[in-house]
Formats: sequence, C-alpha cells, structure tokens
Amino acid sequence: MLRSILSNIRMIEGRKLEFSTKGENDILNITEQVQNIIEQSDAQDGFVTLFLQSTTSGLLIIEWEQGILNDFRNAMERLAPKSGIYEHERAWHDGNGHSHIRSSIVGANLSIPFAKKKLLLGKWQQIVLAEFDVRPRSRTLVMQIHA
Amino acid sequence: MLRSILSNIRMIEGRKLEFSTKGENDILNITEQVQNIIEQSDAQDGFVTLFLQSTTSGLLIIEWEQGILNDFRNAMERLAPKSGIYEHERAWHDGNGHSHIRSSIVGANLSIPFAKKKLLLGKWQQIVLAEFDVRPRSRTLVMQIHA
Amino acid sequence: MLRSILSNIRMIEGRKLEFSTKGENDILNITEQVQNIIEQSDAQDGFVTLFLQSTTSGLLIIEWEQGILNDFRNAMERLAPKSGIYEHERAWHDGNGHSHIRSSIVGANLSIPFAKKKLLLGKWQQIVLAEFDVRPRSRTLVMQIHA
Repeated sequence: MLRSILSNIRMIEGRKLEFSTKGENDILNITEQVQNIIEQSDAQDGFVTLFLQSTTSGLLIIEWEQGILNDFRNAMERLAPKSGIYEHERAWHDGNGHSHIRSSIVGANLSIPFAKKKLLLGKWQQIVLAEFDVRPRSRTLVMQIHA
Repeated sequence: MLRSILSNIRMIEGRKLEFSTKGENDILNITEQVQNIIEQSDAQDGFVTLFLQSTTSGLLIIEWEQGILNDFRNAMERLAPKSGIYEHERAWHDGNGHSHIRSSIVGANLSIPFAKKKLLLGKWQQIVLAEFDVRPRSRTLVMQIHA
Repeated sequence: MLRSILSNIRMIEGRKLEFSTKGENDILNITEQVQNIIEQSDAQDGFVTLFLQSTTSGLLIIEWEQGILNDFRNAMERLAPKSGIYEHERAWHDGNGHSHIRSSIVGANLSIPFAKKKLLLGKWQQIVLAEFDVRPRSRTLVMQIHA
C-alpha cells in the first residue's frame, strides 16, 4: 500500500512545456523532463495531468524500444493511412487528414500518479509525444502537478 | 509558466450534463457548455474531469471541421465496421455491436486543465461527444471541477 | 446536479492492486474491487485515478457481456494482428509485438468520479483490465482516491 495523505494545503503547480518535433513519425520521450519538474516542485505525493494542445499529435505510454516505436508507426499507418482519401484534404490541401484521425483516437491526455517525488510508472513505461503531422511543429504541453 | 496555487480550500463542483443525440454518426460540440460552467463556478485555476456514462458513445478531442468529422466517421467504420460480424448481435439483436467496440477504444473520459477560468485548449481543439449507437440516445456526462 | 464540496482537508489515498491474468485475451472485471476500496476509505465525494503499470495490457470501460468481450478481442486482432510482422520481434523474439501496440492505443489510464461513495458509472459500464501479452502475467494497478 502506498502512503495516504491528509493535508490542509492544496497545491496545483502549472507549467507549459514546449517541444519541437521533426515532423511525421517523430516520437519524443518526455518522461525525464516530467520527472525532473516533479523533483523541482514542492510536491511529495499526488498526480500529474498532461494535456497536449494539439489535434495532429498524440500523447501515450509505450516502451522505448526502436522496434516497438516502428511497429507503432506502422499501426498508425494501418489505422489511418497517409495515402487514404480524406474529406479534410478537399477543402484544406494541407496533407494532414490522417494526422487528425490518429490524434483523435490515440488521445493527448494522461493522468499519472507519483509518490515520494517519483512517477509511479511501470518498469518499461515511458511517456512519449508522437508527432502525426506532416511537417515539423512546435508543441505545447500543459502539465499540472496536483498535491 | 502558468500560475501555481497554494490554497487551504479544496473545491470539487459536480454536475451532470444531459445531451440528446440524433443517433449514429451524430457528433456534438460540447466545448462551450463546459467552458460556461467553469465561468459560472467559483473556480479560478484547476482542471475538469469529464466522464461519459455510456458504452456506445465516446468523448474525444478533435478539430471542428466538417471534413475531419466525416473522416473520423469513416475511420470508425474501418475500426469496427457496421456490417461486420459481432457475437453481441447473436444474443441481443440490437444492431450496435460495432458501437460498443468504437466506444471502448475511443474512450469516454478526459481531464482538461483550466487557468483564470479558461480551458487550456489548443487553438483547434474542441471537446466532442460522438454517438456510435444506431438510434437517438440521451447521454449523461459527469463533470467535476477541481480547484 | 451533484453535490459540490468545499473542504479544508485534502485527501489522497494511494493503493497498489495486484492482479494475475491467464495470458492473452484474458479480461478481468475489476469494478467491484475499486468500488469496495472507495467504500472502505474515508472519502465521500471525489474521483479515482487508475493507472496500470504495463506496456502490454490495457485498462478500459466496456459492457460485461461475453459477446461484446469477444468482439473486443476480435477488434484487437484487426487493430494489431498477432500474426503480423513486428520489428520488436526481430530483436526480442518474445512474441508480443502486437501486445505493445494494442496497449499503447487502448491505454492504461482512467479517471472516474464518485459521489456518496459510489462510482458514477453508467448502468452498463464496467472497468476491465485486458491482458494483451501472450503469457500469464502479474499486473500492478496504482489507484489513488482523491477527495
């Protein structure tokens, strides 16, 4: 059993994290950065909410192994093929119809517990930002520490 | 960096929101309603949890552009085709085997931060309720404001 | 409208729950266990975060009907076929390339509200742990009660 906390102080610490991606199929491991921010905060036990402000990229948990990352990219191609026909294209011609679909299904939102300042991730779990858009993008992630 | 809050008051404000859908493929934009409830509350900074009480519809973030919405509907048809064979049908004959699958994969649960009473959504992000069931339904969404 | 709570005490109760699965396609209904822990806690109103510490299984909401559960298993096979080609296999030969993909897309993280000690689930909603790995596994779920 983990520690239980009763406190008469409620803390929310908010951060905006900025990331640059190299475009389609780039996957960034952001676990260490999230962990570092928790360590620098005053929080001991609680959880973080991560919310990516984007409709053409995703936030997910996966093992950081290059084979798996490629398998994930291939799975995204099956889920919403880049060469598929998208109505979004007819009006906007920006080539990212498939990116919107991948983002809406994978999601961009995680809530992760921590205790004694350590994210309670499983041994192989890493937090990653997956770029689905067709060009390099700047991405903003809102992180809140709740303790 | 966003504001950080230390408070000796913890607030949870709970609401049940009711929605009527027109049946399969109806998608409702509920962003404004969620935003309005935050504005009417006493909360300044925090997050909302949204939980849709349904196994045949979904809650997700997507850009509100008619082409993308149709592309999402087409992606759901690839993910779980309406004309596919479902064991659920053999016993229940209610024609919504595919709806259950779409709901379980897309999910019905979001946590979204806000600051100074504004949802911290990206420029194009909208919160939508996607009806996957084959007939018009009443849907209940539990919203909690945490501040 | 649900009750709204203003309190000068903040409570986080943390638990680690352990589950044993029978291997691929095993699906465990954990709803009752989560409900029981809330009832045994001091919390009245709030929400729980559930975080499964795994990259080859998933946490989701679905109706507990055997036909639907089989339909979900079939949908996972379409999403990431067991007999597909996975780069992960070339290096690791542990036969679970498809399990990683299913886990990363379905997710392993839920936030569920409760009021008066009752999870605010819809009539048919059950919380399930879906094993995607090819062999029996021990699974750890971190549960936090926030009230």
